[in-house]
Amino acid sequence: MMITSRANLKVKQFRKLRDRKERQKTGLFTIEGLRIVAEAVEQGAKIELLFVAPEFLVSEFGQQLVETVQSSGVDVIEVSGDVFHGLSLKDGPKGLAAVVRQRWSSLAEARLSPGINWTVLESIQNPGNLGTIMRTQDAVGAEGLILLDQSTDPYDPAAMRGSMGAIFTQQLVKTSFAEFADWKRQQGYPLIGTSDAAEVDYQAVTYPDPVLLMMGSERQGLKGQHVALCDEMVSIPMVGKNDSLNLAVATGLMLYEIFNQRRHNKANLINTL
Amino acid sequence: MMITSRANLKVKQFRKLRDRKERQKTGLFTIEGLRIVAEAVEQGAKIELLFVAPEFLVSEFGQQLVETVQSSGVDVIEVSGDVFHGLSLKDGPKGLAAVVRQRWSSLAEARLSPGINWTVLESIQNPGNLGTIMRTQDAVGAEGLILLDQSTDPYDPAAMRGSMGAIFTQQLVKTSFAEFADWKRQQGYPLIGTSDAAEVDYQAVTYPDPVLLMMGSERQGLKGQHVALCDEMVSIPMVGKNDSLNLAVATGLMLYEIFNQRRHNKANLINTL
Repeated sequence: MMITSRANLKVKQFRKLRDRKERQKTGLFTIEGLRIVAEAVEQGAKIELLFVAPEFLVSEFGQQLVETVQSSGVDVIEVSGDVFHGLSLKDGPKGLAAVVRQRWSSLAEARLSPGINWTVLESIQNPGNLGTIMRTQDAVGAEGLILLDQSTDPYDPAAMRGSMGAIFTQQLVKTSFAEFADWKRQQGYPLIGTSDAAEVDYQAVTYPDPVLLMMGSERQGLKGQHVALCDEMVSIPMVGKNDSLNLAVATGLMLYEIFNQRRHNKANLINTL
Repeated sequence: MMITSRANLKVKQFRKLRDRKERQKTGLFTIEGLRIVAEAVEQGAKIELLFVAPEFLVSEFGQQLVETVQSSGVDVIEVSGDVFHGLSLKDGPKGLAAVVRQRWSSLAEARLSPGINWTVLESIQNPGNLGTIMRTQDAVGAEGLILLDQSTDPYDPAAMRGSMGAIFTQQLVKTSFAEFADWKRQQGYPLIGTSDAAEVDYQAVTYPDPVLLMMGSERQGLKGQHVALCDEMVSIPMVGKNDSLNLAVATGLMLYEIFNQRRHNKANLINTL
């Protein structure tokens, strides 16, 4: 039976999940679009409910995806085009949306080993930046994010859009700075922070492997207590009028510097064999 | 005399400038906030009109700024807090907003010389990405942007916010791909493009000085005709599930690779003296 009313309870619950409080209360979040639903399936995310608008879902790929999800025992709900427009945040809705269970890891589960890095974000504010950082983390093969204190929600729809599916490849930990500091000291993991005030050039450091990279918030950067915990502080040089870069760009430059050093080292090792 | 009505003609004209068509018709755009107005003044932007809401403008810095602008002959209009709220796109309005004349350069004015780079953006869609790219351009001392074909507007409020004032340090050219291609061939400037399909690693190239960097749109990247015009195509390596990076991050990585090569070369030259 197709749902044709926007007042349907499940439809209303889907829309409520745009709100952070509702996501926190339920431990759920929403995704929309073919590509991201396919990514969720591939990465083994726990889909709770799938909405399908047959009038928009025209591709064979999309229809096969629905069958795959349905055959794994997930509830599939057909909705009219009008109801789907009410769910959708996109201009050109593709007829597929899902409610998915959030996946969080604890600090105890965050294990670093050679080649495996994590990034620590202190009170990141902008969900678009957070999504973009997840996307870059995925690109360099980083393992996960530790979100400290007042960080924005990685399951925000804007973060989801920015991550381009990387939300499903990254481990996510949410904790306080105090607990993170205890864990870092216990484990003895090397922590590198960035600040425009640091004297060491980000390219003058040979990064340890594994390494924890810490980035400050958009407005305030890293504060005294964060800097004090870092084993090294580096800065990205700038020669213009501004004294800072966009946080997602700065994090991208740091992640790629670490990634580039490792792959060139590997290449050098092979060349000397 | 303080304006207390949101229906005031100048107030309504300010709001209309949020619309791209109105900006194109008038050649004007709007800025809001102390820092960006100060940047506009410092960089010699042509301010046409300044709105001041005295009840929000409490800092001495802000009041001196108003005096500076007024003494240069610009119309200053006092508005009530309510009227300013109607103008403002910010949560915490700071009481200062301005109408500014757009500044565009022609291709003929875009001259490259050693150390001076330009970036070419093919149909960039997202104004936030464009703003972030301007901010990174400023950070590495790049000269300007050439916006091709269906590119978004650098004077969009979202681009403005992302640029953090870099809009005033960058030269901007808007043209078609065909005219750009003619100019590039006539001038003989080296053009480097990026694509995930390119076989050459972005770090395996020694970038010419000066150089033109070309980046494709968010969804489509560079197409056949663009690739054909490039002297070299490079790719940024990725090892994750995604096959692309955020455009502002990818542009940041390219701009810093070029910048880093130059500053290390300079350092090497000095070391060998």
